[in-house]
Parts: sequence; structure tokens; C-alpha cells
Amino acid sequence: MAPPTPRLIVPIDLKKKPWQQNLPLHNRWHPEIPPVAEVKTGEIFRVEMVDWTARAISDDNSALDVKTLDLSTVHYLSGPIRVVDRDGNPAKPGDLLAVEICNLGPLPGDEWGFTAIFDRENGGGFLTDHFPCATKAIWYFEGIYAYSPHIPGVRFPGLTHPGIVGTAPSMELLNIWNERERKLEETGLQSLKLCEVLHSRPLANLPSTKGCVLGKNSKEAARTIPGRENGGNCDIKNLSRGSKVYLPVFVDGANLSTGDMHFSQGDGEVAFCGAIEMSGFLELKCEIIRDGMKKYLTPMGPTPLHVNPIFEIGPVEPRFSEWLVFEGISVDESGRQHYLDASVAYKRAVLNAIDYISKFGYSKEQVYLLLSCCPCEGRISGIVDAPNAVATLAIPIAIFDQDIRPKTSDIVPTGPRLVRNPGLPQCSYDGNLPTTKNPCATT
Amino acid sequence: MAPPTPRLIVPIDLKKKPWQQNLPLHNRWHPEIPPVAEVKTGEIFRVEMVDWTARAISDDNSALDVKTLDLSTVHYLSGPIRVVDRDGNPAKPGDLLAVEICNLGPLPGDEWGFTAIFDRENGGGFLTDHFPCATKAIWYFEGIYAYSPHIPGVRFPGLTHPGIVGTAPSMELLNIWNERERKLEETGLQSLKLCEVLHSRPLANLPSTKGCVLGKNSKEAARTIPGRENGGNCDIKNLSRGSKVYLPVFVDGANLSTGDMHFSQGDGEVAFCGAIEMSGFLELKCEIIRDGMKKYLTPMGPTPLHVNPIFEIGPVEPRFSEWLVFEGISVDESGRQHYLDASVAYKRAVLNAIDYISKFGYSKEQVYLLLSCCPCEGRISGIVDAPNAVATLAIPIAIFDQDIRPKTSDIVPTGPRLVRNPGLPQCSYDGNLPTTKNPCATT
Amino acid sequence: MAPPTPRLIVPIDLKKKPWQQNLPLHNRWHPEIPPVAEVKTGEIFRVEMVDWTARAISDDNSALDVKTLDLSTVHYLSGPIRVVDRDGNPAKPGDLLAVEICNLGPLPGDEWGFTAIFDRENGGGFLTDHFPCATKAIWYFEGIYAYSPHIPGVRFPGLTHPGIVGTAPSMELLNIWNERERKLEETGLQSLKLCEVLHSRPLANLPSTKGCVLGKNSKEAARTIPGRENGGNCDIKNLSRGSKVYLPVFVDGANLSTGDMHFSQGDGEVAFCGAIEMSGFLELKCEIIRDGMKKYLTPMGPTPLHVNPIFEIGPVEPRFSEWLVFEGISVDESGRQHYLDASVAYKRAVLNAIDYISKFGYSKEQVYLLLSCCPCEGRISGIVDAPNAVATLAIPIAIFDQDIRPKTSDIVPTGPRLVRNPGLPQCSYDGNLPTTKNPCATT
Amino acid sequence: MAPPTPRLIVPIDLKKKPWQQNLPLHNRWHPEIPPVAEVKTGEIFRVEMVDWTARAISDDNSALDVKTLDLSTVHYLSGPIRVVDRDGNPAKPGDLLAVEICNLGPLPGDEWGFTAIFDRENGGGFLTDHFPCATKAIWYFEGIYAYSPHIPGVRFPGLTHPGIVGTAPSMELLNIWNERERKLEETGLQSLKLCEVLHSRPLANLPSTKGCVLGKNSKEAARTIPGRENGGNCDIKNLSRGSKVYLPVFVDGANLSTGDMHFSQGDGEVAFCGAIEMSGFLELKCEIIRDGMKKYLTPMGPTPLHVNPIFEIGPVEPRFSEWLVFEGISVDESGRQHYLDASVAYKRAVLNAIDYISKFGYSKEQVYLLLSCCPCEGRISGIVDAPNAVATLAIPIAIFDQDIRPKTSDIVPTGPRLVRNPGLPQCSYDGNLPTTKNPCATT
Repeated sequence: MAPPTPRLIVPIDLKKKPWQQNLPLHNRWHPEIPPVAEVKTGEIFRVEMVDWTARAISDDNSALDVKTLDLSTVHYLSGPIRVVDRDGNPAKPGDLLAVEICNLGPLPGDEWGFTAIFDRENGGGFLTDHFPCATKAIWYFEGIYAYSPHIPGVRFPGLTHPGIVGTAPSMELLNIWNERERKLEETGLQSLKLCEVLHSRPLANLPSTKGCVLGKNSKEAARTIPGRENGGNCDIKNLSRGSKVYLPVFVDGANLSTGDMHFSQGDGEVAFCGAIEMSGFLELKCEIIRDGMKKYLTPMGPTPLHVNPIFEIGPVEPRFSEWLVFEGISVDESGRQHYLDASVAYKRAVLNAIDYISKFGYSKEQVYLLLSCCPCEGRISGIVDAPNAVATLAIPIAIFDQDIRPKTSDIVPTGPRLVRNPGLPQCSYDGNLPTTKNPCATT
Repeated sequence: MAPPTPRLIVPIDLKKKPWQQNLPLHNRWHPEIPPVAEVKTGEIFRVEMVDWTARAISDDNSALDVKTLDLSTVHYLSGPIRVVDRDGNPAKPGDLLAVEICNLGPLPGDEWGFTAIFDRENGGGFLTDHFPCATKAIWYFEGIYAYSPHIPGVRFPGLTHPGIVGTAPSMELLNIWNERERKLEETGLQSLKLCEVLHSRPLANLPSTKGCVLGKNSKEAARTIPGRENGGNCDIKNLSRGSKVYLPVFVDGANLSTGDMHFSQGDGEVAFCGAIEMSGFLELKCEIIRDGMKKYLTPMGPTPLHVNPIFEIGPVEPRFSEWLVFEGISVDESGRQHYLDASVAYKRAVLNAIDYISKFGYSKEQVYLLLSCCPCEGRISGIVDAPNAVATLAIPIAIFDQDIRPKTSDIVPTGPRLVRNPGLPQCSYDGNLPTTKNPCATT
Repeated sequence: MAPPTPRLIVPIDLKKKPWQQNLPLHNRWHPEIPPVAEVKTGEIFRVEMVDWTARAISDDNSALDVKTLDLSTVHYLSGPIRVVDRDGNPAKPGDLLAVEICNLGPLPGDEWGFTAIFDRENGGGFLTDHFPCATKAIWYFEGIYAYSPHIPGVRFPGLTHPGIVGTAPSMELLNIWNERERKLEETGLQSLKLCEVLHSRPLANLPSTKGCVLGKNSKEAARTIPGRENGGNCDIKNLSRGSKVYLPVFVDGANLSTGDMHFSQGDGEVAFCGAIEMSGFLELKCEIIRDGMKKYLTPMGPTPLHVNPIFEIGPVEPRFSEWLVFEGISVDESGRQHYLDASVAYKRAVLNAIDYISKFGYSKEQVYLLLSCCPCEGRISGIVDAPNAVATLAIPIAIFDQDIRPKTSDIVPTGPRLVRNPGLPQCSYDGNLPTTKNPCATT
Repeated sequence: MAPPTPRLIVPIDLKKKPWQQNLPLHNRWHPEIPPVAEVKTGEIFRVEMVDWTARAISDDNSALDVKTLDLSTVHYLSGPIRVVDRDGNPAKPGDLLAVEICNLGPLPGDEWGFTAIFDRENGGGFLTDHFPCATKAIWYFEGIYAYSPHIPGVRFPGLTHPGIVGTAPSMELLNIWNERERKLEETGLQSLKLCEVLHSRPLANLPSTKGCVLGKNSKEAARTIPGRENGGNCDIKNLSRGSKVYLPVFVDGANLSTGDMHFSQGDGEVAFCGAIEMSGFLELKCEIIRDGMKKYLTPMGPTPLHVNPIFEIGPVEPRFSEWLVFEGISVDESGRQHYLDASVAYKRAVLNAIDYISKFGYSKEQVYLLLSCCPCEGRISGIVDAPNAVATLAIPIAIFDQDIRPKTSDIVPTGPRLVRNPGLPQCSYDGNLPTTKNPCATT
């Protein structure tokens, strides 16, 4: 018998650039990206990953790096990893790949991360009209806990997870993606209902040769920003130790890629770069469920490829017993009524929470960053009672070093409050970057 | 010293109709609905309530009652309750009313409930285009557990809660509601982006004299269907024993109303009448936070009245350790790409879950009903990665009497599966009801 | 179909004495106590119960009632209940009776309870040498929460449960009990190792005609104080809603009795009358596992009757996320080393906790009472590392309205602390009661 | 700013013997063992440790190594570590040392462990009279999960923790230990009540020069087997990530030592070598609470040194929702009644659980090993109801791949059951080892 020490199949040297690593990284989805390693089902293996920007963001007090980050270069992924069964036969299109997350964490010697608000002219975020300026917070890890010099007074255990786990798309699926996203980009200006709400952010993230590290294929290779049929950037915050992901297989060998490690994230990852982004490692174990797509998945669109992965959440999570919950309904800031729109409702819930918590000595930017990365839960509470969708954001009270509950006694906080930190790294919104045209301009 | 036995301030006689009760029920929001009772802060009191339809739905095997229910009559609420402080001074506009839910449950002798899909021509639901026919399931309670003869093989502990807790709106707030909802109703046809997705349901639920039990004020009194600034139909499934609701006060005395008791509900209450609807009781305790609106809330719109309540979740919940999670992205069934639309993404997650679980011997209608009322969690996982919003639906595995996880072994379920129950009460969609005009017709 | 409203089979009139109730109560275990009701398997039924003393303890500020309570009269139980299967055949010796606790709570209109330290000369408790005087605390219930005017600054949700659930013993089992307990009583003085630790309490609680409400059989009928093979006074604090008890059946019909309702209890119930004792109701459902004793239990002594029940804990419990843990080892207060003695170790853990928490403004008696009834956990952490057993007591931090953790900062509590309540009802230890002889006198 | 990467202060080379390591290990408690490293308060540091036997037990199928292990050599500890504050001033006697466990795990490349029953003639265990033969099970780790080829059908997440965390005793405290343990050893034969229950195991573990790696001081240096005032071998199974230990300081610099890493352990660690024993690492952070012993601890014996540490449990634990609970009362296997003896009661609870689970295809030795190391909870449920102490053992149902609950339906397991593994490594009890004299012989 021999203990199952995980085999390191994708090492990372943090001193090297992405394109200098022993095994090349990739930052697009394409069927022809060649696998960098092969694993057998049942085997425990270890994958190391750079953070999603590959160290473009520094551990310092300036947000200039956030403001100027070239978003065409992200996310840097490790893999693809070819998966074969115990007899050496590869996973086949139509199979399901069951990926168990046995262990994970930051890379030893690199125990820190960042959360950032992107500039409205460079990516933006869920609340980009309220928070248009680039900002960031640095987090340091003490084992399972994270704390930030930029957001004092909070400390929480991370529910660490990979933001991205995905299989390679087939050419057919890739074409579907590119076509439907291009259509949105083209027609978005006319019909976009949400334009006043979420304007000035990119509508889709279409393939671009700029920033692509693939060489060939870069014209058609899909960006990694959105989650899609292959899993990808799902940002499911509970996908931690002991979880399983059942991914559809679209190409021979499955070609599994991982990246975008998060020390912690709130549901929605609202600030866009909203998790605590870090480098990290995953220890994984794969099984192949032959013909699993037919057995377990149902196409949700015109082709058999329109499927979604399934997830199984592990039993190890921080226990929180007390939560403060903020609600939003689908009425926007101008007082306008939207019809059962959960995005608007969730936006309102997040804004309500930001306003509330900022009463305890924080700047609103600090809270926006905090709610992006702390283990808060974003729920769709009511989606049927026309015209209002109701969304809620639940925040664990224990992460604060003060009691943030409303006080029913007379001893309510009055007068000048404790200023938690006025000095968040920030770039003033000077408009020097090229202005994206307002998609609502013509409506 | 005297033990704080809850004082029964609103009794219900289940043998009487709503308009025959000793204390009148109401089914609209209006500042001039007179209080039926008064309570002091710190006092424990008990409120009894009919189910939201006031017994219009029967414990039987026919869904005809669901198909023909007059939706203009719901929800029947108990109250309003005037709240005064220990010196007899009423809650004032600008205060916050802290309502603690000390205890709750079904009315003794009435331990059953129902979950229903409404006909597309009569209310519909989140998935009305997929499930256009009226259907219902009856649930029986065994203490904390519910089971249904119509959906065999599941049994779960209820996270019992009131669907509706709200204060009376002021005339000013009522006017805001009516104006913004009327505007949606009027302009909806032209601009509604979601029309192909959620068509043929009422856009808003505007005041109607029909079905109103108020007498006067019925022309302007607001319907109780949507949640709004006063709380109302929030349908927050975790609002159970030990929770607190912080409600804004808009009129003297606060005028608290409650109703729409749910034995259990899934996040989103997707089937519209999707919780396990029941009669029930609440044992409540109120405190007044003077000037609490200014202290703790921030207006989120053009007036100081544009606020939302805050909730504090109690420490007693069923513990589930294993969850199966389904994902949806904002690409609809036709393959069309929507822009960061959480409603579409959640719809896809629910549809994925329905398809999956129906593989284990259930009809899709059964699963749709089940996911509306079991303690499942609906999350906004990613809302920033353009163009796809990612929503997830997590289902506790322990509610099933079989293991519903995908099997990685070869022993996967094949051949004819156990049919869990083909005979759900159902009304065929015969089109005899007056057809709502399709809001997408002109686009 | 008809909803399964629980059938009330044992009603209690709180204005009547135990012997005046419609259905007689009993306070001993004996096979010939006649059943007062019959239930079918699968049926939901409701049993009401007086508190264990049948209202001998009052809701007031004097502990005189505790000091003078006639302990020969307790516990008053409801039942026995005869259980038959769906065909009318009774449970038989050798079967297992599965009892599900569907619901439970205080009797409506009687929402209060008490926790008491008994006088060293009248029952005593785990720490009777440290706390020899009769004392009590009254608790009031607000739904799931309890608070006490005698122990201010704490409030906690109750994990409500029956202290006693048991089947009737057969004559053969009863004889085994009486013989082994009599032997202890007779030989206890010579060999009792624990004499310095737990002296001056009754060694066993042998049958006594005094206080017995049975009439005949009183000479041999077993006292209800200890838990035994039939379940009985197990005091398992987690036996709340949704739990199941698998009880061995020793007589035809099983003859199930219940009583000693606890609103809340800490592991060990250390103050003897240490739970929050109350009247209450149980809603139960029984199944019979034919021949279940042979199938599932294994005799642990010379006869097939030497078995113990099995329990299944329900999924609904208060969630606490933070615990402060106190440790004890098997070295007693005099510094003497005991050999792997978990009772001594647990005593030390409790004493450590009392001393610690009393630093936050409480008297030690208050803490002793609190640790008996709050949801604290008593663990056997190490039982093999000679010579020290290690026991721990874990206390949920959230029950206090102040932070009781040690402070690592310099801002530690100094000077006079808040006095939480000096005025606990208490009877001074005046020695007027007849003195029990010290069982250690001859060693 | 610089990320707080843990500084490795005690490295282990797994290829070297304990006495060959760069920094010497120690296996006794003594004030004069010189510190091997120094840390500052607030600093994160990493300590590596061998398993408690320093690789004397092998990853194979023979239990001969267990049978012949020289118990005088254990436990091998890393340290002592001298702790100074930010100004360089050492912790002082009378201070409290707050040790936070930031992270921990097995040593990379050594992801396996063992659980063993020791031979009755060589250490024994809690149930040594029932299981006198040396046996062992090997466990392999897959991230947070452990599985064993010797106990198939179970897999569980580990609640990993150090069995031993302790400060160095002062000479005065060491003398107290040696005196009280020697007294037990000398007087044990006459007065030992538990002799029939727990006989033939060593009564105390007194200092021995044999096996000691200290050189000098070996005559008086205390064995590490029992937990004591300095912490030491507490075996508190919940002491995992995010926990804090508040240790009394008895010598300058505190001199912290750690060891005996457990991948997982059940309450009580009943098989003696009952946890999943492994090598491992700890990442720790210390704070000094000046004068903390006076502020927070209370002497529980004749001197101010008679204190016990305090623990704070972290928020990250595996969530289990369903438990099967076994009970024991203080009546032993011969039917003899013991007086409120929690050790006897817990022994009975463990035996009941072993008998029950062995019905599902396991040998009793397998279950004994399993209950020593899986995350089961051992509770003192009742300690006051004379004459029976009630102890319970709660087992999470989810660790088994079959449903181990009693079945109330007729489909109960009958006929030959699945044999889970008859082939546990085992040494037959041949009596060849020198027989310990029976401490009960003279009574």
C-alpha cells in the first residue's frame, strides 16, 4: 500500500511571467488548446495556479494597477488536463466528468490576495454607476482567516474555492457561444432594458486577439469572463473542500482547466474583481460517468449541447449563526418600477446593505468591497409576485468586531462615528481613459 | 411576577368566512384601514390568520379550485395592529418597528396545507409557459415535518414563516406605489424585454374594487401581491422562530398586518402559490426604535419613503449537510443571450433542477411544486461576468427517500424508473377562461 | 383525505392536583400500572404532562419550596400508553418501539419554568458540597427563548425535550433493578471511592411507599430518578423535534410513559433539578419493529434484558458558531489523583466554568444554575490517558449579552464588575433538616 | 506591507529519526528542556511534528509493530518554543498564552495515518478486557477525507487537531504531578473501585529514564500521556482551524510544545491510540495576556498552580445533520450497579454502539477502531440521577455508505450480512508478553 500523495501535474513558479512557466497557461476557451498533463480517474493530483491577473495587481496602496489593467489578458488558467479512465481510455463527448475538490488553498509563501473595484471605463462592476473609480483592498491570510489593512475591524474565515472550473468546448459549442454573444453585442443598444441600470459596462466579452496567449485560434477562442455550458467562471462561493463538480465533456479527454482562485467571495461577487483574488493550488480527483450527459442532463436549448454542470456542496463550511438581512425590490433608484427583475432587486439589496453598514464608520467603497468578498449570501427570495422581484443579501454578523445590529434600546449610535479607514487606495475618476459610448444613448 | 403567556389579540374561527370573523380581515394596503387591536412594546401577543385564500382551496384531489380562484380577493391579512410604547405613545412615522417572531405554527386542528401551480390564464407562475395548467399538491403535517400524498417519497422539516409582515403605507407612499405600477402596466407592452420569457402573466397588480373587503378606499388601496417599502409579501423563507423584522413606520401606531403563513417555502416560491400555504398563528413582540428610519435606513429613491425593511434571521433552522446544486446562466430556452439577467438565469437553474429530479420517477409538475415549497436555496452566484448572470438552486439531499446524486459507479439508474405519482390533481389547459392579451404581441 | 390532527389522549388540567386529573398520573415504574390510553402505530397523538414536581415549585422569589420538596413524590408521569399495530395487535416483549417526537412545547398558558439547586440534606446535586443551599431561578418563555429575572443578561433558544421517555419494565427486569440498586445501597459505605467527591447524596433511590401514587405495588415499584434499560430519565438534551427513540418492549402493549419536560438543559443537568423544568405537551407517532430487540440490540449483561435504547437526533437545533470550552481532569479539589474518572473530570470542568463566568458579574450559584439549563455541551474528551480522564464543558458564547471571551488586548475587565444579580432566591443552610450520615465516615 | 507567510521554526525531516532531527525533539515535560526556537507575539509561525511514535508504526498489514511498541518513548513533541512580546519581553509565570491555530494538516508527502488497539499487556485501551489483542487500521487521506482499506464502507472529513498543546511546567508544578501520581500508583491496589472495569492497564504513567530522549532530568521529567494543568494531551477533537487555546504560563518564555497530530478523533479516543495518528504541521499565532492567570483562571486545588487551560472552538467544522445515539448507564457487564460513574456509563455506550454497528457487516474490532477516530461525540447526558450516570455516544450517519438506522419497515436486514472486512491486521493474544499484575487481585 502507498499513501495517495497528490501528484503535482501543473507547477507554478511565482517569479515567472505566465508565458515563462514550464507548462504554458491559457486565457481563452478553445477545443484545440493542447493538454499540458494527463491524469487517471481515481488519482489525486495537484494543480497550481496564478491569480486571475497573473500578478498584474500588487500588494501596495495604489489602485493605479487596477485602473490600467489590460482586461483582455484575463483569466490565466492552468491546464487543460486530459482525463483518462483506469484502462487509459479518455473521457468522451457525452460523458460527465466528476471532479472532486479534495483540498485547496493559497500557494505557500504567497498568502495574500486583493479585492478591487474596476474603473467604469475599464470593466466596471455591478454598481459601477455608484462607484466609478478604481479602488482596491489588500487582504492577508492567517491560516483560514483573512484581514485587510484597508478595511479594519473585520476578519473572517474564508470559504476558499476556484472561481473557474471548466472543460474545453467543442468547435460546435464555441460557435454557439460566439454567435449568441455577438448578437447581444449588436442588438444590445436598441433593446436593452437595463440600460439605465447597468450602463457603460461591456455588453459581452467577445473574442479578441489582443491579450490572448494562445497564438493561433485567438480570433475565435472564447473569453473566460462569463460562466457557460462548460462550467467556467461560475463563481459559486460554496465550492470548497469536499465539493464535487459534474462537468459535461465536449472533447476527447475532457480537457479540464482551472483558475481564478478565491480565498473568499460573497454571492454575486458584486465588485467584479470582488472575491479575494489569489494564486493557489487545487488537489483534485476525477471520475468519468460514461454517457452521463444523457443520463443526468437535459438540453435547455435548441441543441444537445445546451446543458449546465451540476454541483455537490461539501460538508465543511464556516458555521455562522446570526445574519443581518437586507432586501431589495425591483424598483430602481429613480423610483421606476421594473417587472420581476431579480438583477435590479439584488442591486437594491446590495445598495441597502452598503448604506447601512457605512453607518458604522466605513466608507461606502469599503463596504462595497467587503460585500463582494466576505461570505455573504445573495438570495432570490420572491420571483413571482408581480411586479416586484424580492432579493436579499444576508451578512454574517460575526465577521465584524462591533455589533452591527439595529439597537432597540435608546443607546443608539449618535454623533461622529468611528472612522474605520478613510484611506482606501483609490484612483480619482478623471475621465482620461477612452470613454465607452453609452449604450442607452439612442433610447 | 407573572409568566408572559401570549395575549390572543386576533382570533380566527376557521368555520367562518373572512367577512364573518369577529375582527374584520383585510386584503389591501391602505392607511385608513382601522386597527383591530392595540399592543404595547415588550408584550407578547398572538395573532391568528387564515391561509392567503381564506379556505378557497380544499384538501382534495381536484385542482379546479385553483383554476377558478378569484385572485382579486387575496391575500387575507390579520390586523392592522396599533403599536404603542410602554407609556402609551404610538409608533410615529419615521420610527422603526422591531417585530420579533417568538413562535409560530399552523392553527391547532388545521395541520395541513397546499402548494399550487396557477393556470396561465389565471395568475400563472415563474414557469407558466412550461407549466400552463392548474395543479395542486396537498401536504399534511406531522409536527415539524410535512409529507404529501401527491408527491410521495419526500418528507422534510418546515422552516415555517409568515409570507407577509408589513406596516400600513401613508397616503403619500400609497400614491407612489400606484403611480409607478400603473406606469409599468401602461408602458409594459412596448419596452418589456422579458416578454418572451415571462409573458402572459399580469404585469402589475393594480388596485381593484373587485374582491376588495375594505368597503371604501378600494379604488386606491394597494394590492398585497408584491413586496414593497412596507415589507409586505417578502416571502423570505428563513424568517422563522427567533427572527426579527425592522419595519419602517409610515402612519401613527405603525398598523402592523400579517398573513400568508407558509409551513415551508423554497427561495423564490417559484410556482407563485408555491409555498405550503396554511392557516396559522404568530406570537410576536414589538419594540419601537424612535427615529429609526433616519438612524438606520437610507432612502433609495427620490423620496425619504423609498426604503426597505431589515431582517435578522433566527438561530433555529433545520440543519442540512449535503446539497445538490443546479446552475442557470442568462441564456434562454431559444438559445438567446440575455445581459446579466438574474431572473433568466434563475429560471434556467430551476428548469435544470426540474429536469434532473424528474429522472428519479417524478413528473415535472411534481418537481416544480416541490421546488417551490421545500427548503431549497436560490442564490445569485455571479452577477458581474458579462454577459452571463449565474444563478444556482441548491436542494438538500436528505428530503428524498432515495439518493438523488449522480452515480460515478457503473450502477446508474437505467430502464423504467419508479413512477412516484402520475396522478397529480390537474386541470387540463382548455382555454375556456378569458385569455389575457399577450404583452409581446406588438413587438 | 383528512389532515392528521394529533389526537389528545392524555389531557392535563393545570388547576387540579396529580391525583385529581381525569386520567391518573403515576410516579413509579411497574408492569402492572394499567394503561390510561391506547394508540395505533402511525397515528399522531398528543400527551400533556405536569412538570416533574406537579406544581410543588412556585413562580416566586423564595426557595423554601425547593428546600422542603418531598422527593419521594417525583417524577409525575403521563401514561402508560398501550401501543397496538394497524391490525390491533399489541407491541410484544422483544419488539422495539420507535417513538418519533413530532412536536412539543410548554402547555399553552403556562409558559414558564424553574431551575433549582437542591439542599444538601434534601437531594443535593452534582456540586452539592460546593453549593449546599437550596436556590432556584424562574425562567419565562418568549416563544423559543427563555430569560430569567434571577439571572439577567442571558437569553437563549431552548432545545426543548422530554427528560423521561420509557416503557414499562417486566417483573423480571424490575427485580433486577431493585436487587442491584439495593446492593449498592448496602455496600456503598465501604467501597465508595467517590465518597469525598460526591458524599451526602442518596446512593440509590430505592422503592418507597411514601409519596407513591400507585396504591398497590408501591413496595417494589421502581423510582423514576435514574435512567435504566427502559429509557426513563435519560435527560438527553438533544431529544427535540424530529428525534426518534427506539425503546425495548418488556410488556404487552409496551406501556409508554413520558414526563419531566425540559424547556432546555445542559449536558449533565448538573444542578439535579437543573433543566428548565416545566409542564408541557408531546406530539408523538409510534411504530413497532417486531423482534427488534434481537435484530438491533445486544444484551450488555447477564440477561437478555440488559439492553439500552437507541436514539436518533432530529435536524432542528439552535445553531451556535462560537463556543468557550472549559476542561477538567480527574484530580480533585484536594489535589488527589483519581484514575481515569470521568465524573471527577467533568465536575472539575463545571467548577472551572463556574469560576470563570462568575468573573463577569454573576454569583457562583447563578452560574451553576445557568450551566445546568443552558444548551451547553459536556464531552468526554479523553478517557484513556492514564491517570487523567479529560472532560470538557462547551458554552455557546451567544447566550450572553456581553463578550465573555478572554481579552488578549490590554483592555481587560478590571475593578468592580457589573453585579448581574446578587438576589437569587436562596435558603440558607441552617442544618435544621435531619442530617444524612456521611458515607465516607468509616473510611 | 508584506504578506504574513508563516515562518518555519521547527522543521521535520521524515527520513531522520527523532534524535537525528536538526532541532531535538523531546518526549517528557520538564522546565529545563531548552527552547529550540523563539517567536514574537502576533507572528505566524509553522511547526512540523512527527507522529506520536515517530514512525514506529508502519503503513502495512501487520499489527506486530503495535504489539511491541515501546510506550516509554512516546509522545515525541516539537519545541519548546519561547514566546516573547513585541518588545522582546518573554511570557512570565502568571501570564496566559493565547495560541491561535491558524492552519494545520498532514506533512506534505505523508498523507496517511493509523489507528490502533494496543495489546492488554502493552498499554491496552478503554475496552482492553473486551479487545485484548493488538490491531491496527491504516487510513489514507484525500484532502479533507480519510478512508481505510481495513475498514471499508466509511469515509469522512477529518476535524484535524493537535492532541497535545502545552506549556512547560515549573519545578513546583512538576513535583505536584509526580507526587500525586505516585500516590495513586502506590495506593491504587487497595481502593480502586474501577478495578474490575478497567483493570490491567497502567494506573499512572510515572517518570522513567527508559525511552526518555532528554538525557538529564529524565528521572523526574513527567510523562506526556495524561493531560494536566499545562494543557498537554487534552485530545479535544474540535480544536481545529480557527480555535484558540489559553494556556497558563509556568516558566519564563512559556516554552510551548506541540505534537500528537490527529487527522480525526472521536470524543474519548477510546482505543488509546484511537485517533488517526499522523505527522503534521501547525501554523500558530501567539498573544500574551499579562497576569492572565489571575484575571481569568481560578485555582481548583491547594496551590495557585492547580488551574486548567481554556479553549475557544473555531467556526469551521464538518456539518452533520443526522446522528444515531447510543446510551450507556453505570451498570457494568456483570450487572453490577455503580454510583454515578460516567466512565462506566460511557464504556457501556461505546460497547452498545460497537455491538449495533457490527450488525452491518463489520467485525467488532473494526467498529472499536472506527469509533475511536471518526467524528463521533461522547456526551455526559445525566450525572445527577442516582445511581445511574447516563452517557451517550452520537455517531454521524453520513460517514457510512449504507443506511445504519433501524428500519421501522418490514424490510429489515436478515440473513448473512455483507462482511465489510474480516481481515484486519491483528496480533493474537498469546500471553507471551510479561503479564501486568492485576490491581484487583487483593480485593
